[in-house]
Order: sequence, then C-alpha cells, then structure tokens
Amino acid sequence: MTETRIRFGILGCANIARKVSRSILLSPNTTISAIGSRSLDKATAFASENHFPESAKVYGSYDAVLDDPDVDAVYVPLPTSLHVRWAVVAAQKKKHVLLEKPVALNVGELDTILKACESSGVQFMDATMWMHHPRTAKMREVISDDNKFGQLKSVHSTFSYVGEGDFLKNDIRVNPNLDSLGALGDTGWYSIRAILWAYDYELPKTVTALRYPEYNESGVILSCGASLNWEKEGKVATFYCSFLTNLCMDIVALGTKGNLRVHDFVIPFNEKVGPFYAVANSRWAELSTGCVPEPSDFKIATSYPQEALMVQEFARLVEGIRSGVGKPKTKWPILSRKTQVIIDSVLASIKNGFQPVEVVY
Amino acid sequence: MTETRIRFGILGCANIARKVSRSILLSPNTTISAIGSRSLDKATAFASENHFPESAKVYGSYDAVLDDPDVDAVYVPLPTSLHVRWAVVAAQKKKHVLLEKPVALNVGELDTILKACESSGVQFMDATMWMHHPRTAKMREVISDDNKFGQLKSVHSTFSYVGEGDFLKNDIRVNPNLDSLGALGDTGWYSIRAILWAYDYELPKTVTALRYPEYNESGVILSCGASLNWEKEGKVATFYCSFLTNLCMDIVALGTKGNLRVHDFVIPFNEKVGPFYAVANSRWAELSTGCVPEPSDFKIATSYPQEALMVQEFARLVEGIRSGVGKPKTKWPILSRKTQVIIDSVLASIKNGFQPVEVVY
Repeated sequence: MTETRIRFGILGCANIARKVSRSILLSPNTTISAIGSRSLDKATAFASENHFPESAKVYGSYDAVLDDPDVDAVYVPLPTSLHVRWAVVAAQKKKHVLLEKPVALNVGELDTILKACESSGVQFMDATMWMHHPRTAKMREVISDDNKFGQLKSVHSTFSYVGEGDFLKNDIRVNPNLDSLGALGDTGWYSIRAILWAYDYELPKTVTALRYPEYNESGVILSCGASLNWEKEGKVATFYCSFLTNLCMDIVALGTKGNLRVHDFVIPFNEKVGPFYAVANSRWAELSTGCVPEPSDFKIATSYPQEALMVQEFARLVEGIRSGVGKPKTKWPILSRKTQVIIDSVLASIKNGFQPVEVVY
Repeated sequence: MTETRIRFGILGCANIARKVSRSILLSPNTTISAIGSRSLDKATAFASENHFPESAKVYGSYDAVLDDPDVDAVYVPLPTSLHVRWAVVAAQKKKHVLLEKPVALNVGELDTILKACESSGVQFMDATMWMHHPRTAKMREVISDDNKFGQLKSVHSTFSYVGEGDFLKNDIRVNPNLDSLGALGDTGWYSIRAILWAYDYELPKTVTALRYPEYNESGVILSCGASLNWEKEGKVATFYCSFLTNLCMDIVALGTKGNLRVHDFVIPFNEKVGPFYAVANSRWAELSTGCVPEPSDFKIATSYPQEALMVQEFARLVEGIRSGVGKPKTKWPILSRKTQVIIDSVLASIKNGFQPVEVVY
C-alpha cells in the first residue's frame, strides 16, 4: 500500500506548533516526517513530547528539513520577521507552505513569498484556523441569505486577550525584531479577516486607524483599532485588537434584514461545537415593550478540531498537485494578501496621523 | 387622605406616549391629570384608548395643559424641533419636565431648556428608559469591579432597527423640519449614552465620524457611526446607529480583566427580565484548543417595566422638590447635556470632512 499521506516538516518549536502537530497527527491524510530547530535538543524533546511517529526525523537546522526528500510540505510557525526568508527557501525547494499569521511584516515581503510559491507551483495557505470550522461555512450561508439577512452594512470585530506575566515585555509577539506588528499582526489579523470574510472579501476603499494605539517600551503595538469604509451604500466596519483586555473574540454583522453574532470566532470555547446567534426580520412588540423574535442559537458540531480541518484541506490541495490533477488554489494566497494589505493600511494610517488611507491591492 | 401622586400632563399624542402613559398609570406614585393635542378629537381618543382616569382633562392645545394647576409635571414626546419651545414654556410655568430624546437639535437649544428649568427650580430628565432598569445598575457593579473587570479600554455599541413601510420617507424621525438628527438623534442617542455610561460619564477628548453616513432624499441621516477617543490609556469607543439594518441593541465593553455584553440594552426582549453576559480572567485551555470560563448569563428581573421605573424615579425627585426636602437632581440634565454634546460633535465631524472634533462641554 502506497503512503498517500502528506508528510509535514515543522520549522521550529513554537508553542503553537504543539497544537498544529497534534492536528497533523490526528488527520487521516497527513503525518509528520521531520522537525528542525536551531537546537537539536529542543527538536528532540518537542518530537517526544508531542508524540511524533518514530519514523519522524529530528534536525538541528531548518535547512535540513527543507532538504529532506521525505518532506512534502512545511508548517512554518517561526517569528514573522523570519517568514520571508524561510518560506521562500521552502518554496524554492518545492515544499508546500502552511504559514503562520501574520504571514509577513508587510505586503512587499508577502509578495516575495507568494512569487516563490507560484514559481515553484507549490500551495500556499496561512494558518487562520477558524476559516476551516464548519461553523464558518454555516455562518456564510446565514449572511448570504437574501431573505433572512439582506445586504450587509456594518461589521464590528474584536479579538483581544491579556498577555500574562512578562508577555508584554518579552513575548515574541511584542518583540520589535521578531514580530513588530504586535497586537495588530496577532489579534488584528483575525478581526480584519473576519471583516473581509463577512464582506465576502470585497476590499474597503479606505482604512482609518483609531486614535491612539498603545505601545510597549519597544514601540510595539499592544492595542489598536480602525474603521474600514467601502464608501458606498453605507458599508462600514470597525475593529479593536488588543493584548491588554480580557479575551474577546466577537463578530457582529448587521444586514438590512437580519444580524449575526459570534463570541468565540477565533477559537471556540469548546473544541467540539461552535455556536453562533442569528436573527431576522425583528420587530417591536405591541407598545414597543419588547421585541421579537429573540436571536436563535446555532450550534455547529465538528468531528475534527478546526486546525485539523485546516491541515486536511491544505493536504488535499497538496495531494491534488502532487498527483497532477490540481493546481495551487489561488483563493488562499489572495485572502492572505488582502488581509495583509489591510494591516499595512492600518499602519499607514497610524503613521499618517490617523488620516484615511486608500486601500491599494 | 391627601393625593401625593405626581400628576402628569402629556403634550401630544405621539406613539411613544402610549407606552409612557401606561407606565404612569402603572406606577404607584404617579397619575395622569391632563393631555393636550392640537386636535381635541385626537386627545380625546388617546385618553380613551389608553385608559386615562375619568378625572383626566383633555385639551385642544399644549398651552392649556401647561396652564392647568392640577398638572405637576409634563411628559414631552413632541418632535425634537418643538422641544425648545414647549419645554421652556413648561419650565416657566413651574412644570417639571420629562423630555423625550433627542432632547434638542443641538446643545445650544438644550442649554436654553436647562436654564429655564434651573430658573424655575423644576426637575429635568430625559426619557432614556434603559437607564432605570435594575439590569443597568447590576451591569455598573460588574464593570466597576476591579478584580473581575479592571480598567475599561474599549466599548462598541450598536442600535439599529429597520424603518418599515414609508418610515424612511415620512416618519417624524426622518423629517428635516421635525427631527433633523435622524438616526443619529434617535438610535445614536442610545449608543452614545451607552458608551458614556460605560466610561462612567467621562467625556472623550475627540470624536471622529465614520465615512460615510447614509441619508434620505431630504438629507436626514439614516445610518452613521463614529469613534470616540479619550486619547489616554488606549481608551476608545465606536458606535453604529441606523434605520437601515435589522434590530440590534448591543453593548460590548472590554476591561483589562473582564468583559460584558448585552444584546437588548435599549428595550429588553422580555419586559420582565433583562439579561446580560460577563466573563472575567479568561484563559486558554491546554494547547489553546479552547478557552475558559465561558461567559456567565445574568438575568435581572424587574417588577416594573423600565419606563415605569423611570417615571417613578422622576416622580420621587419631583415629590422631594414639592415637599421642600429636595432640590432638582443635577445628574439628569448633566447626562442629557453630555449625550447631546457628543451628538453635536459627531455632526461637526461629518461636516468637517470626518476629521476629529475636540469635545467641548
């Protein structure tokens, strides 16, 4: 029997790689064949602690993973500043690339990565897990319903969590040399993606950052927000992202006939079921002493965690390319690029005194 | 036995006056002694349909109500453009004033009203009903809790409902001669008050309107939004108000240790109980495959509808003044004025090309 599983190599031992490794090992069409770290000891410990198969190879460098012919694809959870270097090398070595978000420090770097992937004919996908939860597809159905949702006019999204302990000083995500986008790149990435998702990826015309972000001592953003403006039909969106306020993962989308709310869109409270709330054609009760109907609960069960569904979708695309029946799916790099373009626009607006910045794709 | 109930006169037969009349008749310390309309027939029908006591007098003018010595206080649900005229006359005639929102077309008009009330020593209160629901006091407890909420950093509030039928063309609320503030004055009033309430009425430093509002053919706002910026400690707020999107009445408040959500803050879905949701000290589950705890439901029962509690509080203040033990409570006119100042600032920002406008109280 031929091994048809897509064989992953993991670059580095980031904390998030534990969760993704688990999902690769959980999934029927994927396995882990290698991990590399600058420290062989760390890689060895990581492989053992995360129940890698005995066949998995452990390397003391990233290059060794990329040179391994038993690696079909790489998962890259390195600090953002290293993405352009290692994703490009991976693509050049014909490895398909599953890249952690934020995908790059700016759209120029991302374009370098995407060009390398395109030249090599490898699949690119960012690791935005919630996109792959079946709840997300169900929410799409709800907001696409002409009769029960109508035209989308307003979205607000929040993703925040509290950076505990010395996080705000020493975590990779707030280190200006590693992840200089800070909370905007980490939590803002999700809120921006949520807004674009809700508007079915139609880019806004302008982005205006909110006055004033908070920064740590190194000048990295700890909290910020922005408004996105389509400048037609009243279509707007706002978001707030932060490392300074308690966990909140909200999307509120308002349509002309209905609305939709979700309170754990990034990572469901419960791994097995993703809830959301929707209501349509609301009206006041007699004398406006109340209103009906109350929002309905939707509870979308999932047989796999959302990150496993992500890995499986990525592997399906890779398998299609490997077997010659498919080409790299352009949807995923386009969504990454649109998200990065908005991040760049928010930063440009902040630098420009919080003036509106025209969105250029 | 002396009649100690506060005797209301109602100016006009607006739809909202039905709900408030019911609450005046429900409340133990209030009654209705008169109603006036430009049409005596309308006033007569209104009194009958709304179960006024037989003793209630029915007048064919507002002046007659204000001249009636059996009227202690007036409830004024007239179109906003008429507020300054009739609230001032009412105050001059020593009637306490319960005024529908938006209280005035601008803060200058409101100041004229407040000056008249102050000169006459009468109580002023705007008819923002949700302020008086016991849920609001309980939510205040939650967001004031240093250990479970911490410092407030971000608020988003939405109030929208769909103007049905010919509402968007012909309703008083979108008539430039009657309620020229449109959705900003009607639904925006509540969202702005919600934000100020959450920040314990500390005014923001600047207000920046979102690009671009929608207008009806007469140039009245049908949807708009803004960001409010305290310009310190990262404190921000955003709101969206609209007559064009399905009913939504949300507050989401984010603190450094907890957060709070309410989805029917303006008018509870159910008249007898007001729910909200709060969570504190959230943390990721192992491997970040979920998060705990889930938000808790709070369900705050109320023995009276919120508008009856409003009327009762107003009447208690009036009784205190009438009996010589109290003076007009300045809290209520101050809250009205702060809310109106923000409305004026949003309009100024819109007129000023969506630039930030400094908030001047």
